[in-house]
Amino acid sequence: MRYPGLTLRILGSGNPAMGPGKAELISRIEASGSISAAARDMGMSYRRAWQLVEAINASFNEPVVVTATGGKRGGGASVTDYGRQLVAQFHAMEDKASAAITDDLARFTQQLRPHAAKRKSR
Amino acid sequence: MRYPGLTLRILGSGNPAMGPGKAELISRIEASGSISAAARDMGMSYRRAWQLVEAINASFNEPVVVTATGGKRGGGASVTDYGRQLVAQFHAMEDKASAAITDDLARFTQQLRPHAAKRKSR
Repeated sequence: MRYPGLTLRILGSGNPAMGPGKAELISRIEASGSISAAARDMGMSYRRAWQLVEAINASFNEPVVVTATGGKRGGGASVTDYGRQLVAQFHAMEDKASAAITDDLARFTQQLRPHAAKRKSR
Repeated sequence: MRYPGLTLRILGSGNPAMGPGKAELISRIEASGSISAAARDMGMSYRRAWQLVEAINASFNEPVVVTATGGKRGGGASVTDYGRQLVAQFHAMEDKASAAITDDLARFTQQLRPHAAKRKSR
């Protein structure tokens, strides 16, 4: 159970090497086989998605997203086993961090005013 | 040990009821005895700090920040025991969530390219 108020970003160089957005982009590329489809799904420009993919590939020891021949837009894209494992490890850390504070969060949330807690469901 | 890439926000109503910024504001009000000094320290307008204090007080069952007579800017401000406890609980959750993934983070970070890891120290 991932607590929606918890955000994890893996800090490598200046920019986070992995975070919720990059993890989602990788998963969407895996699902669609296409960087442009993944970008569209996320309301992101193709250019932005491509820059993120380049940043991801530059951050890690092995390729995460590979593109088939046919050029940037031509041949489709896929996620390597290595990339899939990275995303799984990332989500596992999100889950583990959330799980560690589940009880504390429940206690803390009881201190919220009822009317504030009610609006939570929006 | 709080991992700097981990951000926790306690979701109450629409806006987070507590997060790193609000926790810092409360601590700075406690240290300075003044909302305006705390705002200045954080590079925030007095108006913004006051709105945040009102939002914080409205979110919880008991007052967190109280202002002395003398009007908004006049009489200084202090943090209640209740407020101090909230902030301590919040930081304890941040620490606990981080601690739960310390080993995983170390393993994950080994997958970052050395040059990316080096730049981390900026």
